[in-house]
Amino acid sequence: MNFLEERIVKDGIVKEGNVLKVDSFLNHQMDIALFEQMGAEFLKRFEGREINKILTIEASGIGIACVVARYFHCPVVFAKKSKSINIEGDMYIAEVESFTHKNKNQVIVSKKFLKGDDHLLIIDDFLANGCALQGLISIATSAGATVEGIGIAIEKGFQPGGQIIRNLGYQLESLAIVDHMDASTGKITFRQQE
Amino acid sequence: MNFLEERIVKDGIVKEGNVLKVDSFLNHQMDIALFEQMGAEFLKRFEGREINKILTIEASGIGIACVVARYFHCPVVFAKKSKSINIEGDMYIAEVESFTHKNKNQVIVSKKFLKGDDHLLIIDDFLANGCALQGLISIATSAGATVEGIGIAIEKGFQPGGQIIRNLGYQLESLAIVDHMDASTGKITFRQQE
Repeated sequence: MNFLEERIVKDGIVKEGNVLKVDSFLNHQMDIALFEQMGAEFLKRFEGREINKILTIEASGIGIACVVARYFHCPVVFAKKSKSINIEGDMYIAEVESFTHKNKNQVIVSKKFLKGDDHLLIIDDFLANGCALQGLISIATSAGATVEGIGIAIEKGFQPGGQIIRNLGYQLESLAIVDHMDASTGKITFRQQE
Repeated sequence: MNFLEERIVKDGIVKEGNVLKVDSFLNHQMDIALFEQMGAEFLKRFEGREINKILTIEASGIGIACVVARYFHCPVVFAKKSKSINIEGDMYIAEVESFTHKNKNQVIVSKKFLKGDDHLLIIDDFLANGCALQGLISIATSAGATVEGIGIAIEKGFQPGGQIIRNLGYQLESLAIVDHMDASTGKITFRQQE
């Protein structure tokens, strides 16, 4: 097990309905030392990629992205989520429909901050069905930017988001891929990664 | 002028209605090297304070808080904003009314992550009327935690939020206090700080 898998086993809580609560260290209370380990690991996994900007989405992606950005010496742009259209100025907008909740959301980034010569690392805390991530890729594509890679803290490997993104040819690196969870025993099975 | 004031003069845009746009480096695109300078400066200004946790609020406070937290070697907890009540579990909830928009919002933190023995540094990007900040202080008080200090990137000194908080006896440190802005000339006047 790597450092993140160990932490999930130690402090994560498996709940009914395939819910994994990691709010004590990842997405409500945030362990910055852990985020630094994640930054160092992403730097290793994306070695050789020329990355000049990190793209993430509010809210819980922002903290990880900002700490990871120190390792790549680049700024972070975060996409905003919105349910309605009341946007001033020139924005990239991706409409994404949640597979789980069936509702539509918009993912929004100002055109000022994504350009055709940007080489992006997309960072987020969770990947399940990949709805938010699809929105971010859509926006990067609209801008003509290059997605050099995608770094995720925890992927739910039993949901289709990760497979779809890999099928599309992106280098997707999830630090922990949960293949199975059992709420009755609390047991979490991770996918073997070399 | 300090480093943040210089950056505001260089890249901030003054708009009609006392709007200061700093989205190219602070709250949409985020300059992580700048946030590190802010962390070092807050560490200096809050020297001698025993801080074990940083409290902030989504979304644009999170990035600054996470980078600043490296200097204080502590975790970050971010409060969530919500318009409605559908909260599971044990939460601290502060109801705050916006002076400007007249709408009510809730500021929410899980009781698991704020305790009576916590010594908090509250971090946010902007302080104007101080609505969000009042919610964070209210929640800290509910938890019995001690607010050791409040660190803000940009305070609008011509709005009442900062004065109220200082009157209440809190050590409030704003790295840039804008006393006046002129949209027609773009000129920004900062309050002198020693």
